[in-house]
Amino acid sequence: MTCEHRRVNSMQALLLAVAVFGFSALAQPAPRTTQTTASPAVTLASWNDGPSRTALTSFVSRVTTPGNPDFVDAPERIAVFDNDGTLWAEQPLYVQVAFALDRVKALAAEHPEWQTREPFRSVIAGDLKAVMAGGEHALMAIIAASHAGNTTAEFEQIVKDWVATARHPRTGRLYTEMIYQPMLELLTYLRGNGFKTYIVSGGGVEFMRPWVERVYGIPPEQVVGSRIRMKYEVRNGVPVLARLAEIDLIDDRAGKPVGIQQVIGRRPTIAFGNSDGDFEMLEWTTTSPGPRLGVIVHHTDAEREWAYDRESSIGRLVRGLDEAARRGWVVVDMKREWARIF
Amino acid sequence: MTCEHRRVNSMQALLLAVAVFGFSALAQPAPRTTQTTASPAVTLASWNDGPSRTALTSFVSRVTTPGNPDFVDAPERIAVFDNDGTLWAEQPLYVQVAFALDRVKALAAEHPEWQTREPFRSVIAGDLKAVMAGGEHALMAIIAASHAGNTTAEFEQIVKDWVATARHPRTGRLYTEMIYQPMLELLTYLRGNGFKTYIVSGGGVEFMRPWVERVYGIPPEQVVGSRIRMKYEVRNGVPVLARLAEIDLIDDRAGKPVGIQQVIGRRPTIAFGNSDGDFEMLEWTTTSPGPRLGVIVHHTDAEREWAYDRESSIGRLVRGLDEAARRGWVVVDMKREWARIF
Repeated sequence: MTCEHRRVNSMQALLLAVAVFGFSALAQPAPRTTQTTASPAVTLASWNDGPSRTALTSFVSRVTTPGNPDFVDAPERIAVFDNDGTLWAEQPLYVQVAFALDRVKALAAEHPEWQTREPFRSVIAGDLKAVMAGGEHALMAIIAASHAGNTTAEFEQIVKDWVATARHPRTGRLYTEMIYQPMLELLTYLRGNGFKTYIVSGGGVEFMRPWVERVYGIPPEQVVGSRIRMKYEVRNGVPVLARLAEIDLIDDRAGKPVGIQQVIGRRPTIAFGNSDGDFEMLEWTTTSPGPRLGVIVHHTDAEREWAYDRESSIGRLVRGLDEAARRGWVVVDMKREWARIF
Repeated sequence: MTCEHRRVNSMQALLLAVAVFGFSALAQPAPRTTQTTASPAVTLASWNDGPSRTALTSFVSRVTTPGNPDFVDAPERIAVFDNDGTLWAEQPLYVQVAFALDRVKALAAEHPEWQTREPFRSVIAGDLKAVMAGGEHALMAIIAASHAGNTTAEFEQIVKDWVATARHPRTGRLYTEMIYQPMLELLTYLRGNGFKTYIVSGGGVEFMRPWVERVYGIPPEQVVGSRIRMKYEVRNGVPVLARLAEIDLIDDRAGKPVGIQQVIGRRPTIAFGNSDGDFEMLEWTTTSPGPRLGVIVHHTDAEREWAYDRESSIGRLVRGLDEAARRGWVVVDMKREWARIF
């Protein structure tokens, strides 16, 4: 595949704007991982010998070896992972944006008025340029229609159904078949070494929880993401959490350390990201006292995936590349260092 | 001790109002619990034989026995505990209120203007009736002065220092020496049976995290509580999370299911509370499909602790008592069922 994101034109602006509202991510039905004491030689099978693998295994060895000056008690071993572009593919369209647009189309039959009302008319017509002309107001209307106005239980089922059938526009694969195999191995390796693995994503937390346990082995309570507000109500004797059309947390950029503090309450030991949306998370992690590691997954493989960084509207990576060396962050060259992508 | 809360008069109104803002709770330097496969006969040593102990051990046996129709997979075993009045004493004054008032007094030397400015002048003078006359505005000023305007790291140290020295006004003991021993045993027992134990408190999450791991064996990432807003900033190259004088979540009453969903993302298996502030948490737990258990700790022991329920301004319990039988909730009679309180 070549770098398709250059072609999407007007969609780029939409996606960028949508990303600001905390939209982002989904991933291959990998086998449910089990915890074992890991031998990196075996469990990181899709990682070529190279500086990133060496840095990762060396760090993990230091923090898990009793008596080592960098030893970290097991309860304090926290590893945080961005999702879109770090654990699964994010090109040419954040998966959650595809979900939002599909959801509006699926609901159109119940809303005949949408045929003449923007931004829905343009979403249904596939005219994303016109959607964009509506600006923030249009965007909030799409979020409200696709994500709010239901209960947490209803939304969970909606996401499960969509993820089970929706397919990537370019590969035709399920989104959950476009997970990075080396990262799955890394999750297993870290858990085998006593780390608690968390997702910390700009994507919606309730958009991830329905499938990440099956796909990544990460339980719902270890997912941090963007949120809309919720309200507890008892409807005909049945308690529900109603999802409201109001942003509660945008867990992106400077919002990521806030999300980490709200949910985890510790500074992570290791942080993995791929874009400048992860910069503050890596900074917050690696400036903390004690041994810390920051890792950037660099999308360098235009053949097997997509190659993008400074010029991309999705997953833009500028400051991270500029400052990685000075900050001691590991930059993973996907093309050279990953024997397998998906 | 007799029911001292009847005497506090004007303080009651302050406390009630403060409680609305999510203020509440602290607890005995109990031995750090370790996880073992629990024998209830041994580990619930401070529980007398009685209906509550039987109900608890019978439920735990059913949900942990493979093949039992009520068996629950270990990753789904979530137990949530209110803090004030459920894990530690809350009379005659929520511990976090004592902290807030002490904090204002401690800061008074740096703020000579407080000597003439309300509500600080009245707090310094110990005139709580006058504080109350300032209403919500006064309260927010006290919260802002005592809880905000610092960083998460600074606040953590402030709480640690205070908890290490502050003493209960009636018993003269450290607040962390007024933890309920039967509940400590229950935490250990549940963890030994594969439960993940969470605090879900109306108290401030950052007021609890600095000491609950030591006292209850509950790590920071398993604490849900009220929050003020935070902002990520880099000050002279050092990243901090600044604590702002704005409420983010009041994790009390209908806010408890919201806090549970935000942080845990699963409906709990067992919920423990002691007041109507826990009603919605117990309701949200026990109306969920599958085996669930709701438990109310009823303060019936005026000799060894305090006896209070329907008439108390702190820990008021009316609806919980009225509906417990119909809803199948266990009501623990502290006087009869607990062999030891602290």
